[in-house]
Amino acid sequence: MAQQKKKPTSKPLPAPANSRPKAAAGDDTEITALDLPPGPLSAEMEAYFAKCQDKLGFIPNVLKAYAFDNAKLAAFAAMYNDLMLAPSGLSKLEREMIAVAVSAHNRCYYCLVAHGAGVRALSGDPVLGELMAMNYRAARLSKRERAMLDFAVRLTAEPWLVGDADREGLRKAGFSDRDIWDIAAVAGFFNMSNRVASATDMRPNSVYHGQGR
Amino acid sequence: MAQQKKKPTSKPLPAPANSRPKAAAGDDTEITALDLPPGPLSAEMEAYFAKCQDKLGFIPNVLKAYAFDNAKLAAFAAMYNDLMLAPSGLSKLEREMIAVAVSAHNRCYYCLVAHGAGVRALSGDPVLGELMAMNYRAARLSKRERAMLDFAVRLTAEPWLVGDADREGLRKAGFSDRDIWDIAAVAGFFNMSNRVASATDMRPNSVYHGQGR
Amino acid sequence: MAQQKKKPTSKPLPAPANSRPKAAAGDDTEITALDLPPGPLSAEMEAYFAKCQDKLGFIPNVLKAYAFDNAKLAAFAAMYNDLMLAPSGLSKLEREMIAVAVSAHNRCYYCLVAHGAGVRALSGDPVLGELMAMNYRAARLSKRERAMLDFAVRLTAEPWLVGDADREGLRKAGFSDRDIWDIAAVAGFFNMSNRVASATDMRPNSVYHGQGR
Amino acid sequence: MAQQKKKPTSKPLPAPANSRPKAAAGDDTEITALDLPPGPLSAEMEAYFAKCQDKLGFIPNVLKAYAFDNAKLAAFAAMYNDLMLAPSGLSKLEREMIAVAVSAHNRCYYCLVAHGAGVRALSGDPVLGELMAMNYRAARLSKRERAMLDFAVRLTAEPWLVGDADREGLRKAGFSDRDIWDIAAVAGFFNMSNRVASATDMRPNSVYHGQGR
Amino acid sequence: MAQQKKKPTSKPLPAPANSRPKAAAGDDTEITALDLPPGPLSAEMEAYFAKCQDKLGFIPNVLKAYAFDNAKLAAFAAMYNDLMLAPSGLSKLEREMIAVAVSAHNRCYYCLVAHGAGVRALSGDPVLGELMAMNYRAARLSKRERAMLDFAVRLTAEPWLVGDADREGLRKAGFSDRDIWDIAAVAGFFNMSNRVASATDMRPNSVYHGQGR
Amino acid sequence: MAQQKKKPTSKPLPAPANSRPKAAAGDDTEITALDLPPGPLSAEMEAYFAKCQDKLGFIPNVLKAYAFDNAKLAAFAAMYNDLMLAPSGLSKLEREMIAVAVSAHNRCYYCLVAHGAGVRALSGDPVLGELMAMNYRAARLSKRERAMLDFAVRLTAEPWLVGDADREGLRKAGFSDRDIWDIAAVAGFFNMSNRVASATDMRPNSVYHGQGR
Repeated sequence: MAQQKKKPTSKPLPAPANSRPKAAAGDDTEITALDLPPGPLSAEMEAYFAKCQDKLGFIPNVLKAYAFDNAKLAAFAAMYNDLMLAPSGLSKLEREMIAVAVSAHNRCYYCLVAHGAGVRALSGDPVLGELMAMNYRAARLSKRERAMLDFAVRLTAEPWLVGDADREGLRKAGFSDRDIWDIAAVAGFFNMSNRVASATDMRPNSVYHGQGR
Repeated sequence: MAQQKKKPTSKPLPAPANSRPKAAAGDDTEITALDLPPGPLSAEMEAYFAKCQDKLGFIPNVLKAYAFDNAKLAAFAAMYNDLMLAPSGLSKLEREMIAVAVSAHNRCYYCLVAHGAGVRALSGDPVLGELMAMNYRAARLSKRERAMLDFAVRLTAEPWLVGDADREGLRKAGFSDRDIWDIAAVAGFFNMSNRVASATDMRPNSVYHGQGR
Repeated sequence: MAQQKKKPTSKPLPAPANSRPKAAAGDDTEITALDLPPGPLSAEMEAYFAKCQDKLGFIPNVLKAYAFDNAKLAAFAAMYNDLMLAPSGLSKLEREMIAVAVSAHNRCYYCLVAHGAGVRALSGDPVLGELMAMNYRAARLSKRERAMLDFAVRLTAEPWLVGDADREGLRKAGFSDRDIWDIAAVAGFFNMSNRVASATDMRPNSVYHGQGR
Repeated sequence: MAQQKKKPTSKPLPAPANSRPKAAAGDDTEITALDLPPGPLSAEMEAYFAKCQDKLGFIPNVLKAYAFDNAKLAAFAAMYNDLMLAPSGLSKLEREMIAVAVSAHNRCYYCLVAHGAGVRALSGDPVLGELMAMNYRAARLSKRERAMLDFAVRLTAEPWLVGDADREGLRKAGFSDRDIWDIAAVAGFFNMSNRVASATDMRPNSVYHGQGR
Repeated sequence: MAQQKKKPTSKPLPAPANSRPKAAAGDDTEITALDLPPGPLSAEMEAYFAKCQDKLGFIPNVLKAYAFDNAKLAAFAAMYNDLMLAPSGLSKLEREMIAVAVSAHNRCYYCLVAHGAGVRALSGDPVLGELMAMNYRAARLSKRERAMLDFAVRLTAEPWLVGDADREGLRKAGFSDRDIWDIAAVAGFFNMSNRVASATDMRPNSVYHGQGR
Repeated sequence: MAQQKKKPTSKPLPAPANSRPKAAAGDDTEITALDLPPGPLSAEMEAYFAKCQDKLGFIPNVLKAYAFDNAKLAAFAAMYNDLMLAPSGLSKLEREMIAVAVSAHNRCYYCLVAHGAGVRALSGDPVLGELMAMNYRAARLSKRERAMLDFAVRLTAEPWLVGDADREGLRKAGFSDRDIWDIAAVAGFFNMSNRVASATDMRPNSVYHGQGR
């Protein structure tokens, strides 16, 4: 999926003298630090995995991580797919931008890699993915985008401070009450996923690294 | 969700000299600060609401808050019920203790009220509910309980720091890898719910306040 | 030092399946984690203890904790009684609200229990006590109350930032210079008490838990 | 790398080209930012002020700040004098060191100036006063002193974390339970005073700046 | 420079419907938010720029940003080149890893992009660059590397806490006193550069994004 | 060491009973905690040291600390002298004020002592030096000075938040774009120096303590 369209500007690098073992070794096989062997999946979940393989070319590791228990996997997939893919006043790209900005606050490796790729792919703008992962405040954003991300990150960092003024700020930036729910729900979801991933040392599929560049 | 077994609190309070309007006025009717009218519910969700009404005597406001969209309600309920009620190496009380300790870190009014009631009811120890909501470190806890809550709160406060040593600490306190997943998943879930509740100013059913005292 | 007027809460709870030892066991007898046997008290302090017993039905544990040294007890009682009970532009309820909001920031179990009871009793609004202890920002407060608590909590969290603009904010909310002193003094006092209580693991009298509910 | 152009310490500085108004102008006359005219004092408090004038050569501004209300002044003076001057397992210097380390955490200008002078004077070591005010961790301290200050500052910064292990640490460093109380009480007291001073913009007597150098 | 060794896993992405303006637009021309036109450069600095162009294929924007003043540019370049390229017990890759881990703590977009590319190029391990920028604690590091980065990030986050125990930790991990200096100096340097870049909204050359992938 | 020019208001202090070893013992001889013997210096650096000795009466310890490596010393001195002494829209005093306010945030003992002396000497106002080191917000500053220090300290504490509004604030306070660069560069430089000093336990020359009082 890597779309590098022209030659890199400069000269090829020499093979590095330093032969460190790869930092990503095993990222595709050792999915978490927990020993939780896959359990039997329902027909519905088997079909979902098959669909992932068919459409993406791989099964995202987060799904494999949940696969030790069919009920947990099904609940996670249902919530994820509704939040990120169902109709909403927020575009899919906007939802991915929230995912990455929240995950950047929480410094979640899994989610930054997987959803950074999502931002790059959906926007067709590789640099936007980097900016979301590094510091969304440095990106050239529309007022709507900035208000959305400021709310999501404040809700992540200091949820106890969020109040009427914050909701009013979103309304002034053009968001409906339903949009506000969706911003909160996506931000909330990644505050959950970031923690499950960090607690279990979840490793992203290596393929994400090259996507959308 | 909550385990109310009998009628709410005791005798009517005398009218106080100081006649401040009640802080809770409307908690049972104005559920969130967002204008999201209830949508049509599936038969399954209608049945779930009826069951809540029957077993608890009320429908938890969080469910009413999600009821503007059947798919979101169903996904939330499925995940919640699996996490908090399905078989696990963690007792239901332990899961409620995590819920409250995490919500205390995030200072989430809705979750502290609803799940503080849960801890009181499940433990039969009203003070334990207060301690979880105020500062779990002040409670007289078993080593297992303390390790579990320390992990959950660290994961809440600084998820980026959690690593092998933290997981090893849980294993030494007697938790299996599956238990570690469950601690992380419950802590993660309330990091999500706390934020949805704070973002929307969700108000708990007043009945919770008197439960289990 | 709240004024409980009637019997604690409602019906006896059924013995819970889960027979954890009570979290509060000994709260009324093991007052702190320090071994400081009571010293001889002056006639004035003996009379003060008798008055507490007479009016409250018990002697607040904080007073028993200070009773190892008559001079320290007398100084503490004099300052406490002046701050919380003497004439002031702040009502007694407002002073208790500050006490609880500050203690919530500092997560002080002793003070949250004792003064949460105070807010419940003085306001006749049990939920207001919960709100102060959980997140005062979630309460339906008057502008005056909110300004007062915002100042007290900012002074607690980041005293180095407080400046002219903060004082002006209080003046605009209707507070006199004397009121500003009193807000600062009450907030300051609980920043002291919270730390003495936390440093010594001070345990509140169990009776507080049921007061004002 | 300061820009003094000639030999160290001694000679008078030339009038600086830059004629900024003095930062301390009025420190001895404008004691706080609040308009609280002095009230009538009791004979006891009059005598106390006279004694200060006699023994110190001036009346500390904090006392003048409290002098708008005799009861508040008396309570403050009683607690202060007991804590800082009465017999204790902690030396007076140790108590002043706690005062300054706590005030440094809270960046309280009044207390750093007044008690920094106290450390310099009691220790006869001007640099020790600077170190306490700047970063006590950079000072060459005994194990006892370091344990005492680490406890006091942790109690200041994160009182909710203090527990049995912290108390045990003090015991291992040679402190009795009474000493632990005194450390906590002095640290607590300055957490109060720092906040009253910051809330009111209290200014120290200029004379402190030169003391003990 | 991209080292993708096999075909990207899946199908080409459709052109995104969403035609947001590029987040990176102008990164190569609008270097900072300050209007500071380039000044005359010394022969030495002209030669340095020519050498950059020749060896890298471009002039790093940070150098162009400093080019408004020859003395500042020369001082920056001298310090940078000594720290990052001169002989040291730390490899060049190790120095770049410190640069990125520090810049990740400070969320500095410029430095994360430029030095993330450096880590990818020097290690030949694209994922290592991502890990340093996202959360170095998630990387599979040697004990030496982990100790080095823990020190650098602690020094970045809370320099006032660093003391003998931290230095001893580095010595136990095999670092000499000279190495400790170098770790501190590199970490310090990026704490400077991160702030100059953030204060001026410095934008990295776009070419960095594709390097070493 | 105290250079009070008129009689202290009060009486001479008695020799302190407490004979603690001096906290500063060895500050002039044990410059850092690292064993890095001085290396050979270039003629230029030898001349620079001689000039320091001649003009200041001593060689600042930071220069001795860097003297183990001539290239590092030369780079440090070049950058320092350009930033602090070269022509700028900021006065030398303003640059020293930034140095101290940043070092106070980072609680860097070396820099607070050395540059606190600088502020005292350049301003002829000893109290201004204390205020910068204790809490610049307590000083009576011009709007220009306050805006400059607020920017420098925000950039120190949370560089990731600095954006267009902060730069606009400086412009409104009368600063040019070049001035903004200089504020950022001085603040950045001390964020570097503070960390090198803290990492190496650098000790200031004792002579600074008495300067400018």
